[in-house]
Amino acid sequence: MPNFENKKFLTDSRLADRVADIHSFIVVDFITRAKAMEAAGKSIVNLAVGEPDFETPSPIVKAAMETLKVNSIRYGPSLGSDALREKISDWYETKYGVDLSPGRVAVTSGSSAGLLLVMGVLLSPKDEVIMADPGYPCNRHIVRAMEGRTRSVPVGPNTGYQLTADLIAEHWTDRTVAAIVASPSNPTGTLISHEEMKKICSFVESKSGSLIVDEIYHGLTFGLDAKTVLEITQNVFVINSFSKYFGMTGWRLGWIVAPELFINAIEKLAQNLYISNSDIAQQAALAAFDPKTIEMAEGNRKKYQQQREFLLPRLKNLGFIIPIDPQGAFYIYSDCSAFTGDSYSFCLDVLENVGVAIAPGIDFGNYRAKEHVRFSYTKPINVLKEGLDRLESYLKR
Amino acid sequence: MPNFENKKFLTDSRLADRVADIHSFIVVDFITRAKAMEAAGKSIVNLAVGEPDFETPSPIVKAAMETLKVNSIRYGPSLGSDALREKISDWYETKYGVDLSPGRVAVTSGSSAGLLLVMGVLLSPKDEVIMADPGYPCNRHIVRAMEGRTRSVPVGPNTGYQLTADLIAEHWTDRTVAAIVASPSNPTGTLISHEEMKKICSFVESKSGSLIVDEIYHGLTFGLDAKTVLEITQNVFVINSFSKYFGMTGWRLGWIVAPELFINAIEKLAQNLYISNSDIAQQAALAAFDPKTIEMAEGNRKKYQQQREFLLPRLKNLGFIIPIDPQGAFYIYSDCSAFTGDSYSFCLDVLENVGVAIAPGIDFGNYRAKEHVRFSYTKPINVLKEGLDRLESYLKR
Repeated sequence: MPNFENKKFLTDSRLADRVADIHSFIVVDFITRAKAMEAAGKSIVNLAVGEPDFETPSPIVKAAMETLKVNSIRYGPSLGSDALREKISDWYETKYGVDLSPGRVAVTSGSSAGLLLVMGVLLSPKDEVIMADPGYPCNRHIVRAMEGRTRSVPVGPNTGYQLTADLIAEHWTDRTVAAIVASPSNPTGTLISHEEMKKICSFVESKSGSLIVDEIYHGLTFGLDAKTVLEITQNVFVINSFSKYFGMTGWRLGWIVAPELFINAIEKLAQNLYISNSDIAQQAALAAFDPKTIEMAEGNRKKYQQQREFLLPRLKNLGFIIPIDPQGAFYIYSDCSAFTGDSYSFCLDVLENVGVAIAPGIDFGNYRAKEHVRFSYTKPINVLKEGLDRLESYLKR
Repeated sequence: MPNFENKKFLTDSRLADRVADIHSFIVVDFITRAKAMEAAGKSIVNLAVGEPDFETPSPIVKAAMETLKVNSIRYGPSLGSDALREKISDWYETKYGVDLSPGRVAVTSGSSAGLLLVMGVLLSPKDEVIMADPGYPCNRHIVRAMEGRTRSVPVGPNTGYQLTADLIAEHWTDRTVAAIVASPSNPTGTLISHEEMKKICSFVESKSGSLIVDEIYHGLTFGLDAKTVLEITQNVFVINSFSKYFGMTGWRLGWIVAPELFINAIEKLAQNLYISNSDIAQQAALAAFDPKTIEMAEGNRKKYQQQREFLLPRLKNLGFIIPIDPQGAFYIYSDCSAFTGDSYSFCLDVLENVGVAIAPGIDFGNYRAKEHVRFSYTKPINVLKEGLDRLESYLKR
């Protein structure tokens, strides 16, 4: 059985120090393994992947095809095409009633590039960033790549698996320059209430620090709409993406909204680190805000909601402990301590034995990571059912 | 008149230290200004841009369209699709007779991302990288972004505007971990001879350092073919790109060839910093090595050669000093000291007065930067002629 956790890295004195501290994106390793098993003829149910099962909405694909017929594919401005920055700005007006200058929008090569740029303009060596554990794995590694340091704050059901203003205050030190929160959160699917977000904004502002809010899963909330932090303050970094709600993972396109003061710094870093974004992806994304695309995205959202409502009670019935019903993203972060004290081995064993891929908690931090796994409900109900049947047979062996 | 060099950055104590050290990509600012003037109705001759004037070859565009008709656009492996890594590996066999495992190829989101990954796995804070001045501007800024430090070595006509093994040896210190060379070089268009490259490889190896060779302009050499450093050693990082020879700038796709030992480190950094590359660009690039595409690329190369042969003697006639005829890329790095001791103001003045965009030396380093400008010869001969006529009228005012 492969063990990605302890994947051997040949050591070489030439490797940068950061390499030892940056871990593989373990769920990516699991998915790669699952795909290899599938290619070898094994039937796999993938409940690990953080990628919509739906295709990119057809108006976006059509816009890309029209572009290929008519236009050159060229370098463009490092902060993104004017047309797309304006569309994004308009979207904040339409969706949230927020008046946002296109000049504060930076289009990025996926939200990963957006995070790197924000950390790049904020972090000097050993500056600290506060974030929740569990949280999105790449956050801490991008901080480390930029020579910052992460202060992970264990969070559990009592705060909805989220940071609070009080927790941030408790962990803020002289070295802290920023806090990052995600609402909805990957892996927990929980949101931060608008009232708590106001308190967080006030606290970080009182420290002259920077707040980064990951709104990548906006649009994918169930039973409520998420508010943007831009309804509270303009002195904030927002990270967003065309990948999830708009179904454009493989196109690699996201955006930042930055405080006015930081846009020039982000621009010069983007010029040097990326030159420009994918032209074809930007031309395609111009159709992302069309009414027809939104109608399709909202249709997909309803299906995710049904999938969530199918999976959630059944996981609880199987014995997974889920104290807070997640309200967003497409993940259920589940306490699996009834079955194992080593969720990493558990996930590997489930994959190898019954062909169900689940993401182990270790990918998302350290706090009770060995007692948690993350289920994705991106797949249709019949696939989820097959996965649950296999999991049940595994658990009842 | 705008002054990009001194573009004001609002200072904020929250900005990372690196921001003060990283400069705008000045030629990008010039091109943006030129486009704005054009949009305002002014006629502009763009001799600043480092982008092929030719369209992306049609087989590549066609492959993208077929992909959009048939396939989903999805996340993929962080090191690139297996199919594309194999095609790239095959290319080294076909073009250079080098046997290269696809496992040592990492596909990247442009060569910019490739450089960032290589610097990311090599540089701990304050580690030094030796590079030529003049050289590609982003190199030193990517080093700075990763908290390394650049040791710029002034180079001139006596070494063909290139580093030599002797120069590298002279500047190597206890803090040096790597040297980067480019052959052909941007901005000078000169190559490093295979014999000198052998000496460079030996020296860097003797220091247990790392050598990075930028081969982005391979295929764009005139009167000779460039050899790859992989014909000399496998203990080297090669940076390459689909942007220039293959005409895919706006698609954002490049690749690294890395020593075996470093591939796992590059993979985990790529997983965290990028997740994956553009799927549509990768599918399109599968057609980059088709005989029909290569035929088109070679046709373009002949046109570049004609454009070079048109521009080079005329620039000399106008009074620009060009001691070494450049043999590659599509640039002529020209000593303009007959006209100015401040090439930055000169370029701005030329742009504002006669609408000709040229890149000022300051973008490429400090050494005699104020006495140099870079001309691109990507445009057809009639456009080059118009630019030269305007430049002549400006100089004879």
